[in-house]
Amino acid sequence: MLFFRNDYGNGAHPKVMEALCKTNLELTVGYGMDPYCQKATDIIRNLCGCPDADVHYIVGGTQANKLAIGAFLRLWEAVISADSGHIQVHEAGAIEHNGHRIYLCPTPDGKLNADMVEKLCQLYCQDETAVAPKVVYISNTTEFGTVYQRNELVALRAVCDKWGLYLYCDGARLACSMAVSDTTFADYGKLCDAFTIGGTKNGLLFGEALVITNPCLCPSFRRCMKQQGAMLAKGRLLGVQFLAALEDGLYMELANASIRAAQQLSEGLNALQIPVLIQSPSNQLFPILPRNIVEKLKEEVSFEHWSRVDEDHDCIRFVTAWHTTEEEVTALLCLLKNHLG
Amino acid sequence: MLFFRNDYGNGAHPKVMEALCKTNLELTVGYGMDPYCQKATDIIRNLCGCPDADVHYIVGGTQANKLAIGAFLRLWEAVISADSGHIQVHEAGAIEHNGHRIYLCPTPDGKLNADMVEKLCQLYCQDETAVAPKVVYISNTTEFGTVYQRNELVALRAVCDKWGLYLYCDGARLACSMAVSDTTFADYGKLCDAFTIGGTKNGLLFGEALVITNPCLCPSFRRCMKQQGAMLAKGRLLGVQFLAALEDGLYMELANASIRAAQQLSEGLNALQIPVLIQSPSNQLFPILPRNIVEKLKEEVSFEHWSRVDEDHDCIRFVTAWHTTEEEVTALLCLLKNHLG
Amino acid sequence: MLFFRNDYGNGAHPKVMEALCKTNLELTVGYGMDPYCQKATDIIRNLCGCPDADVHYIVGGTQANKLAIGAFLRLWEAVISADSGHIQVHEAGAIEHNGHRIYLCPTPDGKLNADMVEKLCQLYCQDETAVAPKVVYISNTTEFGTVYQRNELVALRAVCDKWGLYLYCDGARLACSMAVSDTTFADYGKLCDAFTIGGTKNGLLFGEALVITNPCLCPSFRRCMKQQGAMLAKGRLLGVQFLAALEDGLYMELANASIRAAQQLSEGLNALQIPVLIQSPSNQLFPILPRNIVEKLKEEVSFEHWSRVDEDHDCIRFVTAWHTTEEEVTALLCLLKNHLG
Amino acid sequence: MLFFRNDYGNGAHPKVMEALCKTNLELTVGYGMDPYCQKATDIIRNLCGCPDADVHYIVGGTQANKLAIGAFLRLWEAVISADSGHIQVHEAGAIEHNGHRIYLCPTPDGKLNADMVEKLCQLYCQDETAVAPKVVYISNTTEFGTVYQRNELVALRAVCDKWGLYLYCDGARLACSMAVSDTTFADYGKLCDAFTIGGTKNGLLFGEALVITNPCLCPSFRRCMKQQGAMLAKGRLLGVQFLAALEDGLYMELANASIRAAQQLSEGLNALQIPVLIQSPSNQLFPILPRNIVEKLKEEVSFEHWSRVDEDHDCIRFVTAWHTTEEEVTALLCLLKNHLG
Repeated sequence: MLFFRNDYGNGAHPKVMEALCKTNLELTVGYGMDPYCQKATDIIRNLCGCPDADVHYIVGGTQANKLAIGAFLRLWEAVISADSGHIQVHEAGAIEHNGHRIYLCPTPDGKLNADMVEKLCQLYCQDETAVAPKVVYISNTTEFGTVYQRNELVALRAVCDKWGLYLYCDGARLACSMAVSDTTFADYGKLCDAFTIGGTKNGLLFGEALVITNPCLCPSFRRCMKQQGAMLAKGRLLGVQFLAALEDGLYMELANASIRAAQQLSEGLNALQIPVLIQSPSNQLFPILPRNIVEKLKEEVSFEHWSRVDEDHDCIRFVTAWHTTEEEVTALLCLLKNHLG
Repeated sequence: MLFFRNDYGNGAHPKVMEALCKTNLELTVGYGMDPYCQKATDIIRNLCGCPDADVHYIVGGTQANKLAIGAFLRLWEAVISADSGHIQVHEAGAIEHNGHRIYLCPTPDGKLNADMVEKLCQLYCQDETAVAPKVVYISNTTEFGTVYQRNELVALRAVCDKWGLYLYCDGARLACSMAVSDTTFADYGKLCDAFTIGGTKNGLLFGEALVITNPCLCPSFRRCMKQQGAMLAKGRLLGVQFLAALEDGLYMELANASIRAAQQLSEGLNALQIPVLIQSPSNQLFPILPRNIVEKLKEEVSFEHWSRVDEDHDCIRFVTAWHTTEEEVTALLCLLKNHLG
Repeated sequence: MLFFRNDYGNGAHPKVMEALCKTNLELTVGYGMDPYCQKATDIIRNLCGCPDADVHYIVGGTQANKLAIGAFLRLWEAVISADSGHIQVHEAGAIEHNGHRIYLCPTPDGKLNADMVEKLCQLYCQDETAVAPKVVYISNTTEFGTVYQRNELVALRAVCDKWGLYLYCDGARLACSMAVSDTTFADYGKLCDAFTIGGTKNGLLFGEALVITNPCLCPSFRRCMKQQGAMLAKGRLLGVQFLAALEDGLYMELANASIRAAQQLSEGLNALQIPVLIQSPSNQLFPILPRNIVEKLKEEVSFEHWSRVDEDHDCIRFVTAWHTTEEEVTALLCLLKNHLG
Repeated sequence: MLFFRNDYGNGAHPKVMEALCKTNLELTVGYGMDPYCQKATDIIRNLCGCPDADVHYIVGGTQANKLAIGAFLRLWEAVISADSGHIQVHEAGAIEHNGHRIYLCPTPDGKLNADMVEKLCQLYCQDETAVAPKVVYISNTTEFGTVYQRNELVALRAVCDKWGLYLYCDGARLACSMAVSDTTFADYGKLCDAFTIGGTKNGLLFGEALVITNPCLCPSFRRCMKQQGAMLAKGRLLGVQFLAALEDGLYMELANASIRAAQQLSEGLNALQIPVLIQSPSNQLFPILPRNIVEKLKEEVSFEHWSRVDEDHDCIRFVTAWHTTEEEVTALLCLLKNHLG
């Protein structure tokens, strides 16, 4: 069966796995104080141009978002997000569990812009019967596979500065966003108060690196990690994996491979004149297909149902990953061609 | 350098690592809905004699305790613990972060007993200006390496039944406790409302299996996991490891190896007439040594400082693990003998 | 200056104040266990046809909503509200502070209907990455002064029963809603799991009576009150006031007076051909006026600005209360007539 | 029946009630933005020597403690209290409900001292698996009726400064503590970061004034009040009462009356050679009596049972209030004398 369900369906890239096996029986201190985490942190600080950034390694993306946003906000503050943002749609109330409201902006493509933030701030920053906006949450790539270009981040930074907000970027798929945009690690280091570098969806067994560039943000973040059950006993597992991914450029190679497969698929869908819900430049594609074809496809391909479009059509999601081969994409396109026949 | 610092200093037992490598490039569904988790769950249900138990796989112990206790308690309820309990001493306020108080019982050896619970219930169950005790938290082995025997668990169960409390056992070191007591998996299945089977400290990379035997306890536990960032994307990593540990008896073999090393060490300390803070039958030992010897030992052995005993003496902690060899214990005892010489 | 700003601008109705003065130097037990609270509770149970209902007296409306919804929901559950609901718009994140999400339904008139609830349940009740809807929050009258008729409550009850939800009615202005609809205390007793009977906005110094008719809802509500700082030491103050308001029908008399004034004002606005934002049958009216007239009016009348309508027009809010006289309404209408000239 | 149960058993002092009646039908803005609150705040700022202090009026003491401590602490911080502190013993987990731990110091007399704080800070301030102490909570008078002298507050201030902690004083009975110690309003203004001036237990219907002297403490306290349901709609009720109590010295007169009655009672108990649990200089007294006499006394006097002392003796609590007369004390002493025979 062809697998286009997601980008975290298998384990780790062999080089990452090899690094874990090679270090497996070493004895080190726990909780992220080991030399592997230290080396990975040095590399990340260097990539981001932030020699003093705090870097914390966290097992999963929801945990990273919950921890960071929860630690940055005070009791009376809230986070702004696109209405399709991961924190709103896929995290089962993680932000509210920490006591905070999410202010939602309706967006067609998952992207916040400076205007939306400006309007919300005008409404709520001075109103004492409302919680005060304080963090702007974006994901890059977004839940729709769209990406922010550098100038868009600059505009968000400006509105954040105007209103005294923090800019936080959920980078679960940061590698893919950098592969198809003009942004680099250094841009995130410069423009965001904090952001994550996603591992789980780009070749690691698990792990997100949270980079906090604003020194005021959380002086006791490790306490927060412990308190919320997010400090891994064998913390070096995270350091070892990020080191393997980042020290020789593997991290961007994997994203590039994923994007190449996505582009082949996107062109193929285009050639078959299959409409899409939204034009995505990255590794998530949203074709709209007749329902009977969706049903047939289920027997041969693993994918996710996205939404009902009309009486006869559904939108589904195809995701490519670092391991998706040209042959697999060709095979998927053949299946679609035959069904659409 | 000899390593007696803890039982989670290295990676995984080679058989566990091998299972991870063998399945690494398989493509499965995520979030613990894969066949490996299912098989591990079947084995655990069978071991515990609880064919209907809910089994959830959680990355770490603090996370498991926080999730379970948080999900079992209502707003106005509290958990009872020994004053040395892990939730009080090592989890940075994880229980309080979920809104709940920990009622503490002073104990010399880390063990709660039915009398202590009875007294607390008499004080607080009817007093509406107090939060109501509802969960009894024990760890087995305790933070002092002591263990509960079956009759002690039976007595705790009885007082819980009397007052309508839940009995929860933190089994981060459950294997070691079963190795030196008369309790078995089936006893926990029968006597506890929920308990964990620890992996991190017994040969896994990470992972605790939370077994909920009381069907009323949390009908939406997976939602709680998601909400608190505890649902691993590649959830099968946990299933694969527990399967490797449990399907052929490896889990208890590792605990037995750890206990053999601990007993050799304990007898050696005894022979050297080194006093201990507390008589521990399991894999944590608490020798009391002159401070100058503690200082010398630090250069040759990795261990934890436990507490100051008096002007001239400190208590330190030695922990053995599945990988501790007879030679390592002998070497440690030689060092001690020379220093005390 | 004429006062049409709100219905809580003065103190208490003289009869309520008299009752407080008369009992002022009596010595009773505290925290709501006194005979005045008991008598008020007997009357409320009788009015609602719920001899076993729990009745709790709470100082304010936000506190009542926060307490009730927080006590009824579990960690993984959420409340459904109109997007203009008081809990969303005027309570500064009180629900989220207790850890819960508010699912919002866009409504033009502040009223939820069964269809909206049905759709939300279909979306979220089975989705384990979402928090589960569990309480339906309505306010009656709504924030727009609109009201629910009996058959609308019956339909909401039915959808709640279908999905296992609780129906909670915020009755800060319950008296006014009963004065202009076909609903009675007994309907709320029968159709809601819990509801409040508002005092603050209908002649009391302060106070909302929370009536919990579903015996499963919160066995330890008094503990929750204490925990959230909502148990008044001199609790009898609340009992004394509700008793004064309810024992001789004063409560509905005051609402009727308020409604009479509102109707006179509404007819007057109509006669002056002043458009309104929404047709409200109760004591809040929302005229739309040229901005320059709004400005002039501010010097002679105390009222609230509601929203900007277009380049030249604003919507403002007039509220009548039990003490609003025919002369005051006539004076307001005269002013408007002169300004509109 | 004689009433020595507590100091909040009746309503308000007649002068306070008169002020409420006199202003009852005035129409003002709500939520504490009215001129009465403003005037009361001016007086308080003046009394405390803090022209820039924030003053907030809150209905009850638990609410004030919960709000203040919750607003001052970050996620990873905790409050230090005597083990008999009101926040630990009588508030049903209010602090934990906001996510925070209370670190307890055992004390015989309810008083924290600088040494206790120092020791806790040495243990927990640097330990990242512990929550960090940040607020020192004291009550004055304490739960045992004991009081802090100025030099004791100075010493607490010094240890707070050393470790970067905030000093918060729960002044539910502040008037009584000032009546029997060398402390004044100005001392609290100078030495505490925040404190309350209690009204409920000293002649008001209800109300505590929270004075925040440290400008960094909570820039958005009114939002916190709203969020936790603590902003009274008719907020002026609080201003009117505090104004009545503070503008002509009534506040200290009432405390002095209460203390005179307590001293008469204390001397009487002494003369009858009745032992006490603790020597209290203020308006709470803790005589120890044979259980059979306690039983008889219940029929003639309203008081609280405090604790069991031994097989045959109980400790009970007598509280005097501003309205306790010399005759009432004499009558109580007569009863005791007769019973002790």
